[in-house]
Parts: sequence; structure tokens; C-alpha cells
Amino acid sequence: MENKVKRELPDDLMSKMNLKPFESTDIGHPEVQRVAPKVRVTSDENKVVDSLEDVIKKNLRDGMTISFHHHFRNGDYAFNKVMDLIIKMGYKDLTLAPSSLTGVMNDKVIEAIKKGVITHITSSGMRGSLGDFVSHGGLKNPVIFRSHGNRARSIEEGEIKIDVAFLGVPVSDPAGNANGQDGDAIFGSLGYALMDAQYANKVVLLTDNIVDYPNTPASIKQDQVDYVVKVDKIGDPDKIGSGATRFTKDPKELKIAQMVNQVIVNSPYYKQGFSFQTGSGGAALAVTRYLRQSMIDDGITASFALGGITKPTTDLLDEGLVKKIMDVQDFDKGAAASMAKNKDQQEIDASWYADPHNKGAVVNNLDVSILSALQIDTNFNVNVMTGSDGIIRGAIGGHQDAANAKMTIITAPLVRGRNATIVPNVETVVTPGDLIDVVVTERGIAINPKRQDLIKAFSKVPGLKILDIKDLQKLAQEQVGTPKPLEYTDKTVALIEYRDGTIIDTIKQVKD
Amino acid sequence: MENKVKRELPDDLMSKMNLKPFESTDIGHPEVQRVAPKVRVTSDENKVVDSLEDVIKKNLRDGMTISFHHHFRNGDYAFNKVMDLIIKMGYKDLTLAPSSLTGVMNDKVIEAIKKGVITHITSSGMRGSLGDFVSHGGLKNPVIFRSHGNRARSIEEGEIKIDVAFLGVPVSDPAGNANGQDGDAIFGSLGYALMDAQYANKVVLLTDNIVDYPNTPASIKQDQVDYVVKVDKIGDPDKIGSGATRFTKDPKELKIAQMVNQVIVNSPYYKQGFSFQTGSGGAALAVTRYLRQSMIDDGITASFALGGITKPTTDLLDEGLVKKIMDVQDFDKGAAASMAKNKDQQEIDASWYADPHNKGAVVNNLDVSILSALQIDTNFNVNVMTGSDGIIRGAIGGHQDAANAKMTIITAPLVRGRNATIVPNVETVVTPGDLIDVVVTERGIAINPKRQDLIKAFSKVPGLKILDIKDLQKLAQEQVGTPKPLEYTDKTVALIEYRDGTIIDTIKQVKD
Repeated sequence: MENKVKRELPDDLMSKMNLKPFESTDIGHPEVQRVAPKVRVTSDENKVVDSLEDVIKKNLRDGMTISFHHHFRNGDYAFNKVMDLIIKMGYKDLTLAPSSLTGVMNDKVIEAIKKGVITHITSSGMRGSLGDFVSHGGLKNPVIFRSHGNRARSIEEGEIKIDVAFLGVPVSDPAGNANGQDGDAIFGSLGYALMDAQYANKVVLLTDNIVDYPNTPASIKQDQVDYVVKVDKIGDPDKIGSGATRFTKDPKELKIAQMVNQVIVNSPYYKQGFSFQTGSGGAALAVTRYLRQSMIDDGITASFALGGITKPTTDLLDEGLVKKIMDVQDFDKGAAASMAKNKDQQEIDASWYADPHNKGAVVNNLDVSILSALQIDTNFNVNVMTGSDGIIRGAIGGHQDAANAKMTIITAPLVRGRNATIVPNVETVVTPGDLIDVVVTERGIAINPKRQDLIKAFSKVPGLKILDIKDLQKLAQEQVGTPKPLEYTDKTVALIEYRDGTIIDTIKQVKD
Repeated sequence: MENKVKRELPDDLMSKMNLKPFESTDIGHPEVQRVAPKVRVTSDENKVVDSLEDVIKKNLRDGMTISFHHHFRNGDYAFNKVMDLIIKMGYKDLTLAPSSLTGVMNDKVIEAIKKGVITHITSSGMRGSLGDFVSHGGLKNPVIFRSHGNRARSIEEGEIKIDVAFLGVPVSDPAGNANGQDGDAIFGSLGYALMDAQYANKVVLLTDNIVDYPNTPASIKQDQVDYVVKVDKIGDPDKIGSGATRFTKDPKELKIAQMVNQVIVNSPYYKQGFSFQTGSGGAALAVTRYLRQSMIDDGITASFALGGITKPTTDLLDEGLVKKIMDVQDFDKGAAASMAKNKDQQEIDASWYADPHNKGAVVNNLDVSILSALQIDTNFNVNVMTGSDGIIRGAIGGHQDAANAKMTIITAPLVRGRNATIVPNVETVVTPGDLIDVVVTERGIAINPKRQDLIKAFSKVPGLKILDIKDLQKLAQEQVGTPKPLEYTDKTVALIEYRDGTIIDTIKQVKD
């Protein structure tokens, strides 16, 4: 069958897994029945245990689903410690359902797959050796990629049923009141992990920092926690986020950032109380810097900034240019440290952030989002998952979610190395073009034809060169030529869900 | 059948309602399956509606369960506004499931019962005309009284299934992010209402104060809220809590408070990092004052104070004598106002506070609780529900919950007017004597014989006169004589649940 973004989906798999094809970005008003965990009652005040192995032995069975969060990013010591034991203990046929997988986890995941310990994976993304391994057919069952908001939805509706969640935290008390804001390995918001804490049947905290009861603020609460495992070191602070914020010096990125700022400030959304989400790339940080200056010059303040948060954004909060930060994740040390100090930096869970199946998420209130892309096609579809070689090397993250903003801007260089970024057809559709309003490249911007209002608004702006997306694509093609089509086998190695759980695309095994 | 506190329970009702008799205060380690609400998906940023009637018409059906909170106490304008409309619209056979019922709601509840609008009630308590009405058989079906922790449990396990929650708040944004800390009618913690917000199928906020999005801190979150109804005035600030804190001048209360303080400071729990819960009566406030001086003199600080919070307790927080306040409810303006200013005053929901069926509640970590009583019997059973005339005039509140403290102290005058407080048998068992450690009266203290350690600890304390509880009872009897036994009909007008949902006692209709 073919779905609404013209992707051919494998009939057998769709029917076997009872999947539905992507239909529309309009979520509508379904009534959904949420699920709830099983709770093993305890009145223990002290849940601290030394032996992680005992906890695993007592609670984990073959075939279960385990989860982790990725807030420690590449400074994570929790994942490998747990997976290493699980592998050694000889478990089989587990489903791995982390909020995402970072590079530091790759070797252990591959080992677990090879030994039959992990047979199913759902994640926001994967990169490096693991992406390569899966793209070459290393995992028997297709990976299911979900956005952060979609993961929240899937957990709340029971599509992901977490049996045991292993959650590393930089601080907890003996009863399990924990947050991401204190200790050596702080990462700020626990946003993604809050879903696991609320919905997993068993919640196991790992920490190197146990403080007196009661630890507040309690992002994870004692009534959600079964065990607190004391470990020597839970994370490497230097690898959790980029330390100092690097402001790009790349003239191409600076140019793109300037143009993005022009798009924002000349849009109908740029007014007192507007809101925005930026990412963490060099261009995104530069956008924040340009936007800051514009806001000062124009006397405009934002009601809130959303998303993965960086220090340049918390600086805006400190300066009063942004009134609130709705914070599901922090990308650097400065933003993480800021959370404990500024009560207007509100921690939000992934459901509140972006679950499409609730009574409103913050992304629905978003005016402007600035997102990146590996590829954009002439229908404005965006790929943030596979490289031009067809190999998995990305993550949906909040891409589909934040694209719900009233104006979604994609930033990308026209080409990367010898590969076009603007292409006739993306290798993998992650975010449907329907949600994308403006594409900004160093050669000019393209506006989705359905946004005639924006075309009109931006046509008078000096220095903003508006091109047809097809012309941008041709410019890219002129620079790098036409690549040979990639060759794939018939095997589906991954399914890309849209945020409502329908299938927007699949990834096939690459032919070597 | 007779339960473990020797109360005869009506077999027909027990079997018809599928109820279990109270067995033990030991909750054990059951595995419980929690429930979850149905969610009607919306992406509306603006949920503000003018017509409460439209909201009711669209969402309420005969036979449904509706809920309210009582954080506005006698300053509540939300309850009567909603109930008045529901009565006028002619609904029938509703179950009323508020966190509790305050006096200001009485007339409207009685009217709704008389008109067949309300046919079932569960509450923490009731007083005044409503207690009188129910005690005289005014409601066909027995009221179910539950403690705050038990209500949380019942909601989480589906025994209370709230169809529509009507929750008044002093501030909300248009999407439903709300708290109790800003506006004219602040009451501080939204603790009890957080259960309704999380578990009701439909959540309707009522407020007179709609602020810009996003309103933080969001105690109730936008993804839980269906409607925000704008009203002229949501509450009367002067009646929400006692304004200024009155320090008792009653010599009997002062004497009791001094003795309670002696009990605390001479107990094994009085040490660096201890914790306590006090109530809101005159004696309790005086205890806080004496305890403060002892803590200063002894150089001792508490790790946390729990419960319904008063200004004397937030003063201890400001002074550094208490490190954290775990706050499910605020009893006066000072405590309510303090929450927004002091981040160590942590808002907690009723489950976190006291649900016995979770992975640990704060009451389990409590060292000392000081509770009041209408009656105490020679088995240390406590009645906080019916007067010596058998009429309902109280509330379980957190009584059963806080009695889980390592040392539970009941304060009471030996007699009240012409009625003994210490009696051979309480009219109604609410909190089993098994949980009570010390009873403090102006004539001396009685210690539960199972606490030989405390008998030993207190026997050397000068000025602490230890009596057998039977002797205290006789002293009371000598003062006021032996009352004629009360006469009741066979009709059960109310069931008292223990916090695990078993039936600890019933209340019969009084004979006039």
C-alpha cells in the first residue's frame, strides 16, 4: 500500500503488526483510553540497594520491555552498566525502549542484539555503528522510530508497555525523590524520563549521589520508585552536554542564521509575547544571538521558549527577553545549571511537551520553530533519519512535534560535501512537507506554496531571496550532480511512525 | 460479621456492595493495577468558555460521578455555582465525590439530595446541617467516608471513577495551566485536586483570573484540562483560611500543648533530621510554638514538616528550623502565600502524601504526628467523625494516614462540656487504636501498652503524668457521669473505610 506522502509500505508487515498508514497531519479529536502501571506496594522509606544484579534477577524476565533515558547523552554510565549485567545474566528476547540511543551505548546494544538479548528496539533515533549495523540488517525485527511526543503517546496508550525502567539520576534521596539538577552529573530537565517513571511497572533509579530525605524538587517522586541503586559514578559531566557554547564561525551557517532571523522578525508571528523553539546546532545558536539583538532593538519579549534548551536561551530568560522556558531537555551545562536557579525555567514531561493525543501540548502553542534536516525534498518532506547513503544516522527527536508550530523553518546548507541537501525525493520521510513552511539555505529561502501569506510577507524583505523549492533543488544538483539511486534489499529494517502512530515511511536494508 | 476492631458490620450491605471488613493496619505488599482516564484529544490553545451550562450539557449525563476539591474551604464559590446549575438542569442520580465537603456547601448538597440529583456521596467528612441530615437518614445510600490517602488510592484503583471534575483555581492560563498560588483567592497547595486533574475523564477549571500563557508553576497542567470557565469571583479570600494565626489563651489547651512538646522532645524520635505533622487546632499551633523553642534550645532541626500547613510551620521553614515542607494543603493565608516564595515548600499530591497502595508515601517517613479526636476509647481507637450524640460532625481528613507516623500523639481535653472525650467505646471507630501511641489530656498522658519503650522513656520525665487509659476514662466518667446509650435505627447511613478500602465501622441512623 501507499500512504499519503506516497511511500510504498510493505503490506505483509503492516498487516502482521496491525499498523496503519500515515493519513494526515490533522490529529482530530479521537477519544483515547490511557493505560496505567501495575504497582507493587511498599512502605519502605529506604529503597537503597547495592546489588543491581539482585534487582534485575528479581524483576526482569525474558521477553520483557526495558527502558532508559538519554539525558546523560554521551556522558551516560547507566545504560552500559545495566545492559552489561543483563547480557551476562543471559536474558533473551527483550525489547529495548529508551527515549533515544546515544553513541556511547552503541557497542553494548550491538552486543546484546548479536547474543539474542535484545530482539526489538523502539527509539527516537540511532547513529554511528549501531545505525550502520541495523541498516545492514543486523536486527531481525524492524526498529520502530518514534518522536519524543509519539513515545509519550505510545506509553500512555499502552503501545509501549515498560516492564522495568532503569533511570540514571544525578541525585536522589533513599525513597526515590530525584531530579536532574543537583550532583556531579547534572543534566537539568528529566522531561523524557518522567514518562518512564510514571508508566513503568518497575522503576529502578541509579545514582552516585544519595541525599537526605526529602529531596526536592522531586521531578521523579518516591511513589513511582521501586529501587535506588547506588553506583560509583553515574555519568561523565564533561560529556553530558557541550560545555561552553560554541558560536559558529562558519560563514555559511552565519548567513543562514541571519536569514532565519529575517524570516522570523518579518513574519506575522513576531510580536509581543511570541514563542519559539530552536535546536542545538551551530546555526540554531547563531539564530538565538541574532534574534536576541532584534528583540532588544524592537522592544519585543517572548512569552516562552521551548524544546531542548541551550545556554543562549537561558541567557534570554535571565535578561527578561523570554518570560518562561518550557524545558523538556537541556543541551548544555549552562542550561542544565540554570534550571535550579530560575523558577521560570519550568520542567515539562514529554507528554506535556508534545504528545499529540492529549488535551493540548506545548508544541500546539508554538509560534515559530527552527529545525534542521539531513534532506528536504521538493514536496517539503524532511528526512532527519537516514544519510544520502541510506544508512540510519539520526533521530526524529522533537522534529515532527515542533513542526506543529504556526511557522516551521527548516535550516540546511544547500549541499553537504558532495551530497545535495535539497533533493527531488528524500530517502526517508520523517516530517511531512505539509507541516513545513519555510526552508532556509545559504542560497535563498523556499516557501511552501500553501503559505501564500508568508510569500507575500517576505517578498518585500530586502536581502531575503525567495526561490521555488524546485529551483533550490536544481541549484544543489548543479553543484553536486545526480547521484546514482541507492540500492536496497526487500527487508524492512525500520519503521518510521508519524506522531499519531501511523506509518509515514520505512527504511530498507542497504545493499553493500 | 464483626471486624478486627470488634465492630458489627451489616452482612447484607457488605455482600451487596462487595465490601471487605477491616483486618489489619499492616498494608503488606499487594500488587495493584492502576486505572487511567479516557482523554478526548484537542489541540486547542484556548479552552476558555463563558457558559458553564454548555460545558455541563455537553459532558454530564445522569448517573455520572462528579468531583470538587475543598481547598477554598468556607470561601468556596465554585461548588455552589456548579451544583446550582446541575440542579436546575434536572440531572438525576449523580455520585458526589469531592475531596471533602465544607459548611458552605451544605445547603446545596441537601437540596440536590432532596431533588434526587445526588444519590451517592463519598467524602472525607461533613459537618453541620448536612451531617445532621445524613445522620437522620436523609440520603438513601450510605455515604462512604475516606481519608485523603484512601481517596487517592480509590481514584488510582478505579473505585472512584470521576467523570467530570469541577476544579476552582485562583489562576489559570487559557490552556489550563493552573496553580493555587496567584490571584485574589489563593489557597497554596492544590494537593487533593491534583488527583482529580490526573484521573478524571473531563476536567473543568473555574477561575476569575486568566493570565498569559504559559502560567507556571503549573500544578494542574494544560494536558489534563478540557475547559477553563471564566467566572466573576471564584472565592472569598477572607474565608479560605483563618487569616491571622490565633495562639490559644485557653489554659487547658496550653497545658496539653506543653505536655505534647514534652512527649516529643523526650521521645527517641527527637533528633537531628526528625519530622513531624501537626494539625490546625489551637493546641496544635501552640505545640508548634513550644517545639520551636525546644528546637532552638537544643540545636535541632527537622528534615521536614508534613500535612495541612499553617503559618507557624512556614515560619519554621523561614527560620531554617525545618528544612522542607511537604505540603498537601494550607490552612491559613500565611502558609498559602509562603508557597510561591519558598521553593522548599514542596507541593505534593494526595497520593504522594498518603496513598497506602503505592511505592511509598510521605506519611510512611513521618516520625511524629499530632492529631486531634472527638473521642478516644480504652483500646485507643479514635473517633473523628461522630459526636457524642451520634451525629456526623467531622472528617477523617488525614487522620488515618498521619497515624502511620512512628509516634502518633492524640491530643484532647478529658471532657468537652458535659461529654467525656475518653470513653469505654467510641461511637465510631475511624483510626484503629493499633496506630495510636500516646494520648495527651490536661490530666495526664496515656501510652499504648504495646509501646513499652515509650512508657520507659517518658516515666522519668518530670511533669509528665502517665496514667492507664482506663484510669483517664474513669476520671472523665467521674466528671460527667455515664451517659445513656444512644439509640439508632437499623439503617446504615455511612460506611467508614480504613485507608486500604476495608470497612472499619458504620454509622447508623440516629433515633429522634
